[in-house]
Amino acid sequence: MNIHIILGSKSDMPVAEKANKILEKFNVKYKIDIASAHRTPDYLKKIIEDSPADVFIGIAGLSAALPGSIAAHTIKPVIGVPVSGKVNFDSILSIIQMPPGIPVAAVGLDRGDNAALLAIEILSLSNTKLKHQIEKYRDEMRKKIILK
Amino acid sequence: MNIHIILGSKSDMPVAEKANKILEKFNVKYKIDIASAHRTPDYLKKIIEDSPADVFIGIAGLSAALPGSIAAHTIKPVIGVPVSGKVNFDSILSIIQMPPGIPVAAVGLDRGDNAALLAIEILSLSNTKLKHQIEKYRDEMRKKIILK
Amino acid sequence: MNIHIILGSKSDMPVAEKANKILEKFNVKYKIDIASAHRTPDYLKKIIEDSPADVFIGIAGLSAALPGSIAAHTIKPVIGVPVSGKVNFDSILSIIQMPPGIPVAAVGLDRGDNAALLAIEILSLSNTKLKHQIEKYRDEMRKKIILK
Amino acid sequence: MNIHIILGSKSDMPVAEKANKILEKFNVKYKIDIASAHRTPDYLKKIIEDSPADVFIGIAGLSAALPGSIAAHTIKPVIGVPVSGKVNFDSILSIIQMPPGIPVAAVGLDRGDNAALLAIEILSLSNTKLKHQIEKYRDEMRKKIILK
Amino acid sequence: MNIHIILGSKSDMPVAEKANKILEKFNVKYKIDIASAHRTPDYLKKIIEDSPADVFIGIAGLSAALPGSIAAHTIKPVIGVPVSGKVNFDSILSIIQMPPGIPVAAVGLDRGDNAALLAIEILSLSNTKLKHQIEKYRDEMRKKIILK
Amino acid sequence: MNIHIILGSKSDMPVAEKANKILEKFNVKYKIDIASAHRTPDYLKKIIEDSPADVFIGIAGLSAALPGSIAAHTIKPVIGVPVSGKVNFDSILSIIQMPPGIPVAAVGLDRGDNAALLAIEILSLSNTKLKHQIEKYRDEMRKKIILK
Amino acid sequence: MNIHIILGSKSDMPVAEKANKILEKFNVKYKIDIASAHRTPDYLKKIIEDSPADVFIGIAGLSAALPGSIAAHTIKPVIGVPVSGKVNFDSILSIIQMPPGIPVAAVGLDRGDNAALLAIEILSLSNTKLKHQIEKYRDEMRKKIILK
Amino acid sequence: MNIHIILGSKSDMPVAEKANKILEKFNVKYKIDIASAHRTPDYLKKIIEDSPADVFIGIAGLSAALPGSIAAHTIKPVIGVPVSGKVNFDSILSIIQMPPGIPVAAVGLDRGDNAALLAIEILSLSNTKLKHQIEKYRDEMRKKIILK
Repeated sequence: MNIHIILGSKSDMPVAEKANKILEKFNVKYKIDIASAHRTPDYLKKIIEDSPADVFIGIAGLSAALPGSIAAHTIKPVIGVPVSGKVNFDSILSIIQMPPGIPVAAVGLDRGDNAALLAIEILSLSNTKLKHQIEKYRDEMRKKIILK
Repeated sequence: MNIHIILGSKSDMPVAEKANKILEKFNVKYKIDIASAHRTPDYLKKIIEDSPADVFIGIAGLSAALPGSIAAHTIKPVIGVPVSGKVNFDSILSIIQMPPGIPVAAVGLDRGDNAALLAIEILSLSNTKLKHQIEKYRDEMRKKIILK
Repeated sequence: MNIHIILGSKSDMPVAEKANKILEKFNVKYKIDIASAHRTPDYLKKIIEDSPADVFIGIAGLSAALPGSIAAHTIKPVIGVPVSGKVNFDSILSIIQMPPGIPVAAVGLDRGDNAALLAIEILSLSNTKLKHQIEKYRDEMRKKIILK
Repeated sequence: MNIHIILGSKSDMPVAEKANKILEKFNVKYKIDIASAHRTPDYLKKIIEDSPADVFIGIAGLSAALPGSIAAHTIKPVIGVPVSGKVNFDSILSIIQMPPGIPVAAVGLDRGDNAALLAIEILSLSNTKLKHQIEKYRDEMRKKIILK
Repeated sequence: MNIHIILGSKSDMPVAEKANKILEKFNVKYKIDIASAHRTPDYLKKIIEDSPADVFIGIAGLSAALPGSIAAHTIKPVIGVPVSGKVNFDSILSIIQMPPGIPVAAVGLDRGDNAALLAIEILSLSNTKLKHQIEKYRDEMRKKIILK
Repeated sequence: MNIHIILGSKSDMPVAEKANKILEKFNVKYKIDIASAHRTPDYLKKIIEDSPADVFIGIAGLSAALPGSIAAHTIKPVIGVPVSGKVNFDSILSIIQMPPGIPVAAVGLDRGDNAALLAIEILSLSNTKLKHQIEKYRDEMRKKIILK
Repeated sequence: MNIHIILGSKSDMPVAEKANKILEKFNVKYKIDIASAHRTPDYLKKIIEDSPADVFIGIAGLSAALPGSIAAHTIKPVIGVPVSGKVNFDSILSIIQMPPGIPVAAVGLDRGDNAALLAIEILSLSNTKLKHQIEKYRDEMRKKIILK
Repeated sequence: MNIHIILGSKSDMPVAEKANKILEKFNVKYKIDIASAHRTPDYLKKIIEDSPADVFIGIAGLSAALPGSIAAHTIKPVIGVPVSGKVNFDSILSIIQMPPGIPVAAVGLDRGDNAALLAIEILSLSNTKLKHQIEKYRDEMRKKIILK
């Protein structure tokens, strides 16, 4: 497994599925767990410490402490995905405004897809095959737009 | 000790001092610790689990995960104080928008004083002396305004 | 009766029902009244002064003065629940930004459930049975997430 | 006395002074009191009920319940002035977003001057002298701009 | 006619109807016109200057210049009603944040009802019958809440 | 004169001076007037109707109706510059959120410089000399950055 | 071709169609392309450099870099249209808050119609026929409102 | 060189210096360039394409297109740092709300330090020495807080 996706709640699954779709397209191994920073902090810590993942993706809404809590227990890169709701600024600001010392890489609201692509870009730094796949992916994206 | 105040960072001290001033006026025993939800999660957990406090006050700015992290490790009432900064909505929303199951009692921006008063109100439910003190405090507050 | 829930308007009932469900699960006695800070200030005052409750929960939307008005007439802990609408920041900020001296414990938007849990945490400080119930509740919450 | 200005706190005085300056220029009688909706609700009620004023002006910051509380105790027109602070949207939204049935006339942030002018416009509906004064005031304002 | 309601666009009619309903209940004479500050500035000016109304109500969304434009052409009290849309802060801030010298009495988002009640409060300063009607209206409002 | 700059208030002059500096550098003739949409609507209308300008620049803060009011009286392109203050979203949203039919070209907060450059771009569509000047200006801007 | 409309994504087409409708009514030649500032930056640059258009309209949502990217590659006037979504302030602020030196003319959220009208106003500075058409258009708009 | 820092403007240097300080502490090679997405798009493209960097850091304020523009020209991980100003939500939302397909890793407002730490975490995935350095860095951070 290379990428570990953790959801704060079962209701965040549609955002995770955008990530899964990308990771499967790139044949990158990943695992999904549900673990709440607030409701299961010890279980969350255990999952992170036991994880062989190179990159973590934390997906959460409201006062989205999950990505920051993951980052508190690992020195691997952690990507945070704010999930939309009634306020939106709550999850965006909770994830992006991390204090100095413990970075989280925030992507856009509900952007599970970009979280996966960012994780793949990170992995591709030491994986030439993956690098070629991204180049091909971008090329296809480009062509799809231009040929319209 | 009855009340345990935890700051996310040394820079939150001026807000804590508003709480201290109130607690000392009411002769309520309290302790102050600095412990970050992001930088020292295990130490924070230990502090909370070892604490004999009845009420916790968490004071933090930015993506203020501290009050929610305290609440994750205790079933005692937790009061959260958002600290002002460049954005303000970050700490307010991070503290107030807790997910179902793990409540935090949010007070206003930089309102260390109100956090202390709320803690005292909670303690006074089973402490008649404290109850009389609050009544007296409110009376004085009232008179100060009316006599102006 | 231990907990007194007051709604600013009949339309806030769905948020109150989230609280009721929790309180019934914990067998905590509660009462619900509708009383507006703006439309029935004297009736609201009377309700509060006559109330034997240990904790008040005020639920209101728009310029949600209700929780603050309850707090103005009691020294018991007051929990405020902002109700969602077209703006959301109106009820959130009206409830959380209380002036010094009169604290309100604000919980998240539409979080009647967390208001009830916070009230129960407060009551459990002097009620061992309730304390065990919360511990059990948290345990079940934890297991439900972990077993998924 | 025609206009009753009530401040939520002594610190709102600079905004009140903008109102006073206008009222004195127009020779309109006014009175200023400090009375908090949260700290002195009964005193506030008494002040309002004893007041012979035709128009009330409530000036307050933070979760500015004052203008709405005045409106709850009178059927005279109530003008609300939000006072600036660290958040600004708190006082603006608390004052403007009144529920149906109890209107408040909100003016701009720190606009004590406009509150006074609006009160004078209201009084001038049945006061021809005042009407001429406003017309003259507008004329002078116009000329000052045009002659620049 | 006592009250002149002006809408910025036909689509603002549902908000105007909340005002009409109140005005009819109170038997207050009113007139409704559609006139845009941006699309028909001269026609708007003419309407205002020809109007015998004591109070104007301007209802508009987006960059809601209408209430301010009415106020620019009259010294009668002008009430502004922001209409909801995709942003909401646009109409709220455009109406409430008037510059010094030209006041507008802003009421809440889509609050045509409160605009009408505020207008009636203003008229009732010199109309005893109307005053009694408001007192009765408030009484009924109170009873409806208390008897629930 | 090619460009007519209108300020809502004398206090907006620092933003206008950023425009003047650009216009003088490009030798474009301009005129500055102070005229308020709210305080001097008829004078504003007269200024606009008498103006031989090809492009108008309206600079205003708060509920910045000025650019929209200019656009209401001309079919020439109108550029609006929101001026910063305590809220900022007030002037930004008042200027950008124009209703359908009457466009305003909004530039950034306090961006008098960009308003002038946009006006020059518009004039340069039928002025080859001006076109070369802009190309040169961009070139110099580019070089200044690259040579750093 | 006089006006070149560029969309950041196929999903922005409904906003473009509001522009097309206006441009066809005025018989102004235009072209529509889809080209993303982020996904096809080189193609976007080529499109702009090859374009004989006098005015560009960039339509984009989210972190709407498109209008600014167009402006980076041309000295022709560029109009930016923010597209609505879950946040709205993202596209509004990304388009309006351009840095000094590279102006974009921002219009309101989803206001493809106003973008087209602004472009026509710009073209009409050197096109008398178009000028008469706008005058007629405004006249009809006025009449439609007044005759209601 | 491993990390390439690009600033949108010379005025963003204080934020870059927070990054430099961290990178120097970790002995990670880096380069700083100033290149604007809006003022020097071709130069920016050249810099990126010529860069041997593994990770890019883009630092920009206002409608901060820079990080997204870097990401448009590389498949290497790009970290974006929003710079504070009069609005703050402009740079935060411009950087975090990237469209699907082109991810940017957003860190907090003015958080040059966290951008550097995130870059180091990414590099340390294939650099054991760096990994140990981060572990040591976190340890020291922890001790400094705990020993207080």
